[in-house]
Amino acid sequence: MREFDVAIIGAGSAGLSARKEVVKKTQNYCVIDDGPLGTVCARVGCMPSKVLIHVANEFHHRHGFEHQGICGGEHLSVDHKKVMAHVRKLRDRFVGGVLRGMTSWKEEKLITKRATFIDENTLDLGDEKIKVKSIVIATGSRPILPRSWESYKNYFINTDDFFELETLPKTIAVIGLGVIGLELGQALSRLGVKIIGINVGKTIGGITDPVVLAEANQLIEEEFEVSYDGAEIIGEEAGLLVVKSGDKIWKVEKAFLTMGRAPTLKGLGLENIGVELNERGLPSFDLKTFQIPKTNIYFAGDVNAQRPVLHEASDEGRIAGYNSVRPETQCFRRREPMGIVFCDPNIAYVGKTFKELSSSGVEFITGENSFRGFGRTIVMGQEKGVLRVYADSKNGLLLGAELITPGGEHLAHLLAWVVNLQLTVFDVLSMPFYHPVLEEGLRAAFRELAAKAEDKPSSLEIFRCDDPPVAVR
Amino acid sequence: MREFDVAIIGAGSAGLSARKEVVKKTQNYCVIDDGPLGTVCARVGCMPSKVLIHVANEFHHRHGFEHQGICGGEHLSVDHKKVMAHVRKLRDRFVGGVLRGMTSWKEEKLITKRATFIDENTLDLGDEKIKVKSIVIATGSRPILPRSWESYKNYFINTDDFFELETLPKTIAVIGLGVIGLELGQALSRLGVKIIGINVGKTIGGITDPVVLAEANQLIEEEFEVSYDGAEIIGEEAGLLVVKSGDKIWKVEKAFLTMGRAPTLKGLGLENIGVELNERGLPSFDLKTFQIPKTNIYFAGDVNAQRPVLHEASDEGRIAGYNSVRPETQCFRRREPMGIVFCDPNIAYVGKTFKELSSSGVEFITGENSFRGFGRTIVMGQEKGVLRVYADSKNGLLLGAELITPGGEHLAHLLAWVVNLQLTVFDVLSMPFYHPVLEEGLRAAFRELAAKAEDKPSSLEIFRCDDPPVAVR
Repeated sequence: MREFDVAIIGAGSAGLSARKEVVKKTQNYCVIDDGPLGTVCARVGCMPSKVLIHVANEFHHRHGFEHQGICGGEHLSVDHKKVMAHVRKLRDRFVGGVLRGMTSWKEEKLITKRATFIDENTLDLGDEKIKVKSIVIATGSRPILPRSWESYKNYFINTDDFFELETLPKTIAVIGLGVIGLELGQALSRLGVKIIGINVGKTIGGITDPVVLAEANQLIEEEFEVSYDGAEIIGEEAGLLVVKSGDKIWKVEKAFLTMGRAPTLKGLGLENIGVELNERGLPSFDLKTFQIPKTNIYFAGDVNAQRPVLHEASDEGRIAGYNSVRPETQCFRRREPMGIVFCDPNIAYVGKTFKELSSSGVEFITGENSFRGFGRTIVMGQEKGVLRVYADSKNGLLLGAELITPGGEHLAHLLAWVVNLQLTVFDVLSMPFYHPVLEEGLRAAFRELAAKAEDKPSSLEIFRCDDPPVAVR
Repeated sequence: MREFDVAIIGAGSAGLSARKEVVKKTQNYCVIDDGPLGTVCARVGCMPSKVLIHVANEFHHRHGFEHQGICGGEHLSVDHKKVMAHVRKLRDRFVGGVLRGMTSWKEEKLITKRATFIDENTLDLGDEKIKVKSIVIATGSRPILPRSWESYKNYFINTDDFFELETLPKTIAVIGLGVIGLELGQALSRLGVKIIGINVGKTIGGITDPVVLAEANQLIEEEFEVSYDGAEIIGEEAGLLVVKSGDKIWKVEKAFLTMGRAPTLKGLGLENIGVELNERGLPSFDLKTFQIPKTNIYFAGDVNAQRPVLHEASDEGRIAGYNSVRPETQCFRRREPMGIVFCDPNIAYVGKTFKELSSSGVEFITGENSFRGFGRTIVMGQEKGVLRVYADSKNGLLLGAELITPGGEHLAHLLAWVVNLQLTVFDVLSMPFYHPVLEEGLRAAFRELAAKAEDKPSSLEIFRCDDPPVAVR
């Protein structure tokens, strides 16, 4: 039986990051993945979706052409076959980059099989068993397909197969308006596909702030038909799927299932490692070490269902990899949480959400700015969106934010960094804000917070200093 | 003779900000401005230029349509009359906003005359003289017109008259490729005007870093004809202006003079306030109080020729206003310097420039990232640009940056804030970076810096913590 110091199960973003830490300590490791290789991010996630969204938004801009003096927008059309070919071309470039990063070690260290736990230190690879001192589980996640709908599966698309479509269906029910449903649903709608968006309840895109959510609901309802009454599949008719939500019925060519993703655990045999599993089949694990307590097994990336975004998966993989090759398990600080939905305008949340703060008992104040009637969005012809920033009501310590605004991805970074740095609203008001920029929308919200905070210096006072004068001649 | 506690000369961005501080202490003040009102920013600066740039960039995007699957881009055209009408429509909205902000006090406090100093405390307004305890000079700046070219002035346009054009000339020599020349020259070129850009030397857009500058030169030369040999006007011919640069000659309908702006001092009578003036006619003043030493006169905004951008003019006005109504002059900290050129890709510089650092004797390291072959710019079809970040070579303290990149305005804010906060490259590497975003381009440069710094923790070490484990169940 072959013996390894470490086995990493899954060559996705978390597993590849784990490997980088492992190789600093040992060459006696293996990465086990039966493919497809290339990471969810590059193959079927972040990257190809952003390409489709980019094309859709470029095409969508034609609606603003005429009043700006650009003529002929009515002659623009999209060729869905070409769009999808373009998406795949760039997708292949991104996947190629990931695969090239693996060439130096793939031959020797990658085992293209499926792994099943026999016990904490033994994996069954089908045609062989291996002994391993430590294991990093980084098997990622898969799109959810409700079992009762399985008989309609020819009508379904999910992100695993979507990017393989030669062309786009004419009608799609997008079931689930979370991150993926909103991003791709809106993009498809902008590309001329008739979209029906179906969600259970009005909470879309992960927003918890009622003001931001109301704006998001309104903006998305302006673009395509939405129902918040959940989806029922009631049959098929003349080659179309019949979907019901509330008292409405639609016949669609396809249903895009975007109800979330579930950890990839099937066949992994977690029941054999000797720890308790919860009702979802997940073991307990530690958020700052990624260790499954009392084992030499680490549980990192989307599989642990905590922060299913790329940069967190990478961090988790590195922490898990680091700990997997050391006798003592080390805790690591995490970055401030941050989520971005790349719909247009972008949705984002950073730090503590409105819901978390509301239920925490912390006394917090809210600073708000509407992007209607706001300098730069007037210039852009994009007068929409709102952002809300939360701070400690006493000292103005920044706690979190939620927003749906043009350029929200950029504002989210500024917000996440200042929350991560534990700055107050007075600290950030002393930073430079250029003009005319979207960042001035942040400043407006910060000013509202500053006015509400209990302990507040006057606005110029934060700049007072006792430096000697500096004369310019 | 009427007597005032404070007179503010100039109702632009600096003067209006000064007023906000003045009214906190006295109602016995006046603002003197003979118009046009509405601020340079809203009338002829930041705002209308951004509208023109936005339209030009929207139109320019058609070049990327076909390979993305968007058909019919060849049918797009721009109607220059409609474009200019659109620019003016939004301009009027912005100016209207400024004017509305003045309605509550304009009637009583605004004197629409020109002011000339008789002495430090006396102003001649033409038909009356007034006595004033303190004065804030905030007269702004005007476009430069070389005296030797005055006889050709029918051929010239500057930002004061540009936005009044009913339509656009067919050929324009843009003389001076600083901020305004680059922004509007590129926009005009993208709108189909034949542009010849003329500059003295290769330094354009205020860039001092040779790597960033080389990229900027290349990108701009790809868009329109550029000469770096300075402009000579050699005559007129058949209604066209004949412009020479080096050994090349062009005949153009108009020349857009964008060689910079000079303080508006004419007729102000600064020679009567009893202080020495330099060769440009400027008095010495203090950078942290804006006082002209040993006087009750403050010198704020573009007129002092220090940081001619809106947010600095506002700060300076507020500081000047604050000090003008107090017996003791107070120093104030300034925000970290930051400049953005809204050409595409954006140019920006924050903190210390490459040139400043190079001549300061500080030992600094450089982190660089090219935006060619870079995730998000591939998605956007905008593979161009480069950014360079500077840090102390020993401890990685961030000192400044220069860049020309897509979304540079947003990256510049992150950079300016972290430089303002005196963070090290290790601090910023522990911040969240989402995926796939332009901000990851910053991270790449930060990583290069981290690898070069003398005193460096390993990359994961910055996250080590001694917190107790937190189990997720």
